[in-house]
Parts: sequence; C-alpha cells; structure tokens
Amino acid sequence: MKKSMGPRTLAFPTPVWVVGTYDKEGRPNVMTAAWAGVCCSKPPCLAVSLRKATYTYGNIMLRQAFTISVPSEAYVQVADYLGMVSGKEVDKFAAAKLTPVRSELVDAPYVQEFPLILECKVLHTVEIGLHTQFIGEILDVKADAAVLGEKGLPDIEKVKPLVFGPEVRTYHGLGKYLGEAFSLGRKI
Amino acid sequence: MKKSMGPRTLAFPTPVWVVGTYDKEGRPNVMTAAWAGVCCSKPPCLAVSLRKATYTYGNIMLRQAFTISVPSEAYVQVADYLGMVSGKEVDKFAAAKLTPVRSELVDAPYVQEFPLILECKVLHTVEIGLHTQFIGEILDVKADAAVLGEKGLPDIEKVKPLVFGPEVRTYHGLGKYLGEAFSLGRKI
Repeated sequence: MKKSMGPRTLAFPTPVWVVGTYDKEGRPNVMTAAWAGVCCSKPPCLAVSLRKATYTYGNIMLRQAFTISVPSEAYVQVADYLGMVSGKEVDKFAAAKLTPVRSELVDAPYVQEFPLILECKVLHTVEIGLHTQFIGEILDVKADAAVLGEKGLPDIEKVKPLVFGPEVRTYHGLGKYLGEAFSLGRKI
Repeated sequence: MKKSMGPRTLAFPTPVWVVGTYDKEGRPNVMTAAWAGVCCSKPPCLAVSLRKATYTYGNIMLRQAFTISVPSEAYVQVADYLGMVSGKEVDKFAAAKLTPVRSELVDAPYVQEFPLILECKVLHTVEIGLHTQFIGEILDVKADAAVLGEKGLPDIEKVKPLVFGPEVRTYHGLGKYLGEAFSLGRKI
C-alpha cells in the first residue's frame, strides 16, 4: 500500500554540484546546487536550477556561463557550507580555503581542489517558478589525473561524488558497485 | 593537474528513474532514464530528457503526463532492462513481471513494485538537441509504508535508490550516511 506524501520534491537521488561564476566585478563565487542533472547528449548539456535571489543567478544572467565542480566525499562539509551562505556577503572561496581557477573556455571559475569539472555556456534559460533553470552546453570536462581509471575516463569510485536526499536533507557517499549498464538487463 | 576529456556528459552522479506512460491505445509502458533531476521547488517540478525516437517521447507528447517510479537496488537488473528495449516492440511491464497501477491524478501508470512514485503533468517541453526535456509538475509523491522513516517521510536508506555513472556506465547503490544538510557546513 502506497501512502500519499503530497506534492513535493521528494525525488531520490540528486547530485551535489558546485556552481562557479564571476560577479560583475570579476570576483569568483561558488554555490552548491542539487536541482540539477544531465539533460542532453548532443550537444552535451546539463541543467541547473537556481532561485533568482541567489548571487549565482545574477552572475549567470550577466556572464551566460558557469562551471560545475563535483566535490568528492571528503569535501562534504565544504559543499554544505557553500549552499548555506551567499556570495553577496562572503568570499566563499576564501572562507572555505578553495582555489578559483579561471576557465579558458567560458567566463567562469572552477574549484581546483575538486576532482571533476564541467565548463558550460548557457544555451537556454527556462522560467519555471521559484527556480529558473539554466541549460548549459558542456564545452569541456576536466578531471584530476589521480581519479582516472580504465579507458582514460574518470573512475566514479575514485571521484567519490556526493549523493543528496531532498527533504530528508541527508548526504551520502557512493555505494557499492552493482553492475554494468546496458548489460545487466540482458538477463531479463 | 587536470586533464581535458572533451565535451561530453561526464557528470557524476545521475539518478536512475523509470518513466511510466500510456500509449495511444492505453497500453502502459516504462523506460529508464538518467538524464533527469529536480528543477523547481514551487511548484515542485522535475525534468526528464528523452530522445524523440523513444516510445515514451510520443506517449508524453500525447498524454502530457508521466510518472517517475524510483527502483530500489534489488531491481537493478530490471531497471537496466527497461532502458535497453523499446515499448514499440515489447510489453515491458509483462516481460519484467512488473504491475502497472493507473494514477488517479495524471494520465499515466506507475510501477507497483517500486517504493517511491512521483506523478507529474507536463508544464514545459524544451527542445535542446538530441534530447527533448519534459518539465513535469509533481502533483503527488507516493511511498510504500515499508520505506517510511522519521517524520513520515521516506527514508532514503530504505528506498535504496540506484546511482548511475554516465559514460563509465556503472550502477551503484547508495553509500554511507555522511551528515545532515544545512547543518554540517556550520563548522566552516
């Protein structure tokens, strides 16, 4: 028997991605977002939704660019912090002891300490309601050499991305390997 | 030193969500999607991106509704299967021994065996490229009594959602609890 929970954002899991932008003075800012995901294969695109009240919203509207830096598990405290305070009031890179790196492809900075980076230019801006969705074309992905696995791709078990549970508000690590996609299903 | 991987959908992690729809004859269909995420808090919305070639794409265009059924870890083989074959050729509910339940709120079926369900009506359709993004307003969330935890919300550790690694094509379970959001960051 299923129990009704009402209309709410109870969808498991979501990512924990850190959005990097420059403000109008060129100061780097970062904020954590969970309302996000991949949204197209060709061109490769991802979407991230932000409230208009955030500093990052204004920065993306201005620069039409952002980066996603994927924090590894060891940075869970930092990732949470970056979602709690506003770049309007705090230099979050300095406060969290993170190093901004200027992207050579888009007008946005990324986080040097995080193992996986996606550099995006805005393709579409979708007004939904409280949140505005920015669809960014992924111009490049960069990964630390230390997290590379077979075939030169980043190994997700080395990246150790965070996993978020909306509404229940919990962070989790990546769990055990369960099998290979487009392969396991052949047994059905 | 970060290594360039080129423009690709290498973003960790993504969800593994099963999209339920009716076709024009009213036959229930399900397919697995990973290009998806929450995209707005008010109204509560999620987005799922599909190729026009999928059977589900045509069904959503016709019915303007879909459900998301979140498979638990035990259904990883089934979830993979539902992303490998097309509803044009196969009755996937029957083949995977799943039970379709008609939503009372939207014109779409969901999967009885999966612990967490979101019923959505289409608010926006965004043409991006190979994929079309459907933004659905979440009209209700339903959860099995067996996965409920504190405060009557579903416990993510009981739901055991799957986690996907795009391009590396691996499924993982949910990992260990790392802490509470909007709380851990206070220590920075």
